[in-house]
Amino acid sequence: MEKFVEQTLLFDFYGELLTEHQKSIYEDVVFGDLSYSEVAEEKNISRQGVHDLIKRCNKILEDYEAKLHLVKKFLIIKEKVEKIRRTADDPEQVKRISDEILEEL
Amino acid sequence: MEKFVEQTLLFDFYGELLTEHQKSIYEDVVFGDLSYSEVAEEKNISRQGVHDLIKRCNKILEDYEAKLHLVKKFLIIKEKVEKIRRTADDPEQVKRISDEILEEL
Repeated sequence: MEKFVEQTLLFDFYGELLTEHQKSIYEDVVFGDLSYSEVAEEKNISRQGVHDLIKRCNKILEDYEAKLHLVKKFLIIKEKVEKIRRTADDPEQVKRISDEILEEL
Repeated sequence: MEKFVEQTLLFDFYGELLTEHQKSIYEDVVFGDLSYSEVAEEKNISRQGVHDLIKRCNKILEDYEAKLHLVKKFLIIKEKVEKIRRTADDPEQVKRISDEILEEL
């Protein structure tokens, strides 16, 4: 998976487990598309400090996923629902895939 | 929701964030259906210790859900997939509900 997509998903699922400070800087850098230097100046911390914080947040978010696998679970379900959407005209397929999802949940 | 069902779901989603010690005692009491006294004897801690640990684990699991809402999200999706399963013969319904789920995910 592309790094940015992965970061977005992980943040979307587990971001609330970061501190307000971490979240705010992470959002500015990863989603706000500001450079490390810009965020460093804005938040009045060092460029290295921003760099370390982003690295640490990525690690925290990845560790949650390594334990809970909830992003993975959602992606599997999403794929199956897309398949249902595509085969909506085939009731047997729809039932079969629905059952697969319900077993997963 | 029934207390036991709620505990099962929360443990299923966030249980891996408990320590091995917490998990083991929580499983014995909540899912193994052993009494506090039995678990206390088996684990060589006080009955009160078991009681406090269960209370604390419930609080930890509830706090994760309060922040992440992932159990809630899953339950909404589950309900919609069950609806798809029931209306599998109606392609328009299947498409409409699939789209709802995909917006949710």
